[in-house]
Amino acid sequence: MKACAEDRLLRELLKLVPISSKQPLGPGDDCAALHPPGKNQLLLLKTDCIAEDVHFLRSHDPARVAWKALCRPLSDIAAMGGTPGEALITFFSPPDVGSDYWLKFYRGLGRAARKFGVTIAGGEMSRQKHGIAVSVALTGSIEKKNLLLRSGGKPGDAVFVTGVLGGTQASHHLDFIPRLAEGRWLAKNARPSAMMDLSDGLGTDLPRLAQASDCGFEANFNSIPKRRGATIQQALCDGEDYELLFTLSPQKVRSLLEEWPKAFPKTRLSQIGTLISPKTSPANWPQGWDHFDGQR
Amino acid sequence: MKACAEDRLLRELLKLVPISSKQPLGPGDDCAALHPPGKNQLLLLKTDCIAEDVHFLRSHDPARVAWKALCRPLSDIAAMGGTPGEALITFFSPPDVGSDYWLKFYRGLGRAARKFGVTIAGGEMSRQKHGIAVSVALTGSIEKKNLLLRSGGKPGDAVFVTGVLGGTQASHHLDFIPRLAEGRWLAKNARPSAMMDLSDGLGTDLPRLAQASDCGFEANFNSIPKRRGATIQQALCDGEDYELLFTLSPQKVRSLLEEWPKAFPKTRLSQIGTLISPKTSPANWPQGWDHFDGQR
Repeated sequence: MKACAEDRLLRELLKLVPISSKQPLGPGDDCAALHPPGKNQLLLLKTDCIAEDVHFLRSHDPARVAWKALCRPLSDIAAMGGTPGEALITFFSPPDVGSDYWLKFYRGLGRAARKFGVTIAGGEMSRQKHGIAVSVALTGSIEKKNLLLRSGGKPGDAVFVTGVLGGTQASHHLDFIPRLAEGRWLAKNARPSAMMDLSDGLGTDLPRLAQASDCGFEANFNSIPKRRGATIQQALCDGEDYELLFTLSPQKVRSLLEEWPKAFPKTRLSQIGTLISPKTSPANWPQGWDHFDGQR
Repeated sequence: MKACAEDRLLRELLKLVPISSKQPLGPGDDCAALHPPGKNQLLLLKTDCIAEDVHFLRSHDPARVAWKALCRPLSDIAAMGGTPGEALITFFSPPDVGSDYWLKFYRGLGRAARKFGVTIAGGEMSRQKHGIAVSVALTGSIEKKNLLLRSGGKPGDAVFVTGVLGGTQASHHLDFIPRLAEGRWLAKNARPSAMMDLSDGLGTDLPRLAQASDCGFEANFNSIPKRRGATIQQALCDGEDYELLFTLSPQKVRSLLEEWPKAFPKTRLSQIGTLISPKTSPANWPQGWDHFDGQR
């Protein structure tokens, strides 16, 4: 009995990625069937995507493109304080891209999945006329009591950011490490009042967090951490930083500043501003980039 | 504080679709946070996708395209005997498609979601250079004891198919009703040994089920149900039927044939063949179409 080419390619691709042995049903049937998280936990669910010429170029190594595809939604799981679970990979492949591309892609996917404890539960492939596009759906779990939203910030809360910002297009956007360990630690230890990940740039994302928390914000531009060689404008507007942005009630700040360097000696932590009651932002605050408007 | 255009469009789109009031966290944060299924249940997870000029045309009504986008993975939930839950919608939008298209699309999405008891938990939007593409990730649930796989078929089991096959490109592929009610009923009552949905055509999908069940199959070509006007070749190879294909141990056949017309008086049920022990298919068995090879 001749299996069709799609099934054959899928079987080859699935050899390159980790498949959970603990789940009742991984890839290959109509759906994956998974053990749900325990009763004190919530199921996290996220989908993210990348498109050729928007998030990556055809000339980029497919393995690094795959890394980015999986690490983007991982950064969102990190931002909830969660632990990642299973991924489903959907890819759109144009006629001028062969199975070779996808074999390289899945090798990179396997590397990222193993690194961050993700298993692949399935996916879908389709042709499309032009351009490569990939969508990744990801599950995660979080203890109910530790769930971290964007909306919990209060006036007076300190605003923090991990790592350094800006200048991400040189290489960082294909190589970044999602802040899963930091997100888990913060959820369990520091208990931020609000948290999100920085994907569109601090210039866009800090207003989003403030708005979700029904607050305005003040920022100390001198405290905003810049990647080596990046300007303040780039740190605010480049996007694709995949760092954590969070707020913390003032009485917890001193303890965090003491504990953080012990837990993450290599990861910078910067206090960059304060949530305030009037819903205003600094007069010279920029906007980041916006996928749908096509601005950068 | 100026919210960016992407956030604004998303807020408009989300007004057009049902959002669960029972979940801790729907769209708008980094991830959705959902109550997991109960302890005797499994979490079903499926992703599916459609691409312009492959699964639909620009000239098709966006509301019908949305119907198709959501109903395709619903058909997979049906094939497991499951109940659908939450959907995440990822869409890729080229520069020549404006927010107007997506407002119409989300209206159709809302219609399909309400019809089949699905709520929207989030999603993602991205530009891409050419062509529209949409990926839908869908959760579902199923009682552990009722899970229906492709792989449970045994030699001697009768092979059944719901509805009629072929001629799907005229209109059916944008208007079909996923067999959720039938799938649930079969899982609870008839207890098939194996089940899947027909998306690539019986010609491709029956060999898939047989192979997963480690069987071959015989087929009675005269019993294969054809849509009005469709040839047997079309019934086998058109694809996009979204009917259920299942196998049943011989001693359950009589009872199913008695009970089915009472439960689903309007839905045809056809016994089309038998699983056999040698892994062979009928000599004149065709192949359906294959996304990755680009055959139809």
